[in-house]
Amino acid sequence: LTASLEKWLVGSDLSVTVANIDPGVESPPYTSDVDIREYVDYGEVMNTFGLGPNGALVASLDMAIGHIDDLREEIIETERDYVIVDCPGQMELFAYRNSGPLMVSGLRGDDPAMSLYLLDSNIAKTATGYLSSMLLGVSINIRFGLPQQSLLSKSDILTEEERDEIVQWGEEIHLLEDALDQSAEGLSREYSKAILEMLGNLDTAAGAIPVSAKDMTGFDILYGELQRVFSGGDNLYE
Amino acid sequence: LTASLEKWLVGSDLSVTVANIDPGVESPPYTSDVDIREYVDYGEVMNTFGLGPNGALVASLDMAIGHIDDLREEIIETERDYVIVDCPGQMELFAYRNSGPLMVSGLRGDDPAMSLYLLDSNIAKTATGYLSSMLLGVSINIRFGLPQQSLLSKSDILTEEERDEIVQWGEEIHLLEDALDQSAEGLSREYSKAILEMLGNLDTAAGAIPVSAKDMTGFDILYGELQRVFSGGDNLYE
Repeated sequence: LTASLEKWLVGSDLSVTVANIDPGVESPPYTSDVDIREYVDYGEVMNTFGLGPNGALVASLDMAIGHIDDLREEIIETERDYVIVDCPGQMELFAYRNSGPLMVSGLRGDDPAMSLYLLDSNIAKTATGYLSSMLLGVSINIRFGLPQQSLLSKSDILTEEERDEIVQWGEEIHLLEDALDQSAEGLSREYSKAILEMLGNLDTAAGAIPVSAKDMTGFDILYGELQRVFSGGDNLYE
Repeated sequence: LTASLEKWLVGSDLSVTVANIDPGVESPPYTSDVDIREYVDYGEVMNTFGLGPNGALVASLDMAIGHIDDLREEIIETERDYVIVDCPGQMELFAYRNSGPLMVSGLRGDDPAMSLYLLDSNIAKTATGYLSSMLLGVSINIRFGLPQQSLLSKSDILTEEERDEIVQWGEEIHLLEDALDQSAEGLSREYSKAILEMLGNLDTAAGAIPVSAKDMTGFDILYGELQRVFSGGDNLYE
């Protein structure tokens, strides 16, 4: 998604810096202007300390914390309109450890920032999958403390009907309730009611914008949302 | 935790089967009676298909789905009182893909089962960390569709005061609310209120039992909870 979003923004005459902060990524589908791998060598960390892939990622991220100022300096020097920061996908190693949120807040400084949370279309196409993905999104939102927008990624694998249905689940909570009631997985009514009420009360979790890196769709709507948040000063935190 | 829980159960004159379903684990701290690695070879999958660690885990789990019946057969043949199934920790690869829930429901069959969700003491000791961990737990609960108990793992790293405070957050939601209000991270009042209301309405998310594999503490309380769920037929799903 990073590569396509960059392409879309540049195509709209905006300047963009792409920063990679995943030490373990092998060949990302974009050229990063700023890269954590210039500061920590994941392979070397693995070998030197005899760590497995997970341990090496954690250690690399911990080591990278000492270079946040350098990374931020590099980003500022590029003087671009937007910065896309590509984060490691291993949630339990990035979002749920201290180094991930520290990294994000350090890179951000006092600049406006927004977190993009990707729902996998394969999971989100069932009502219970959608519900659990949205809850995970709320949890990650709390960890990072940034305004957050959910994106329905790889939406090209869905039919138009499926895509529309998922978007509507975010807009009208009673449609999601109906879908849950009909689902074969049979979540108890009490349980889903409590969760639906919460999602209804959280404006930030309002819904997912379908995007497709393959078809280059959805970026105009996402950009509108970015504009709204950055100019409106919309913020989850007081 | 698997090793300690097994030890505790055996020490209480119960017979236990330990099953490992993480294809990528290198040297687990227990001897598994049933092991997914006898059916799929993670290293070979990695080499044969030229996959990275994450891709190989996903492919191995997908391949293992074809052997669920064999695994279940093996487990049944051991004829033990309890079965502990150790799952891969990579949530986004296990819980949020189809193979994870399929694996769990296939192994379980129609037998009573309960999911143990581990909160990391390092994260859960702050109010916002606790809140996001509990939300993640609710999300995982939906994915697996089993009655679930949260455990506060590695609780030996906490002081007695910290441990008591976390337990109380689960019992009296207003104490968690107070802690959130005072936290430096400053989650907005509206936001935390909506989430707290939901947690208060979900009996299953009631609280975390502190356990320590190192000190062998908390297992008696956990065992009481297992008994209650298995005999009472307590079930999240209708």
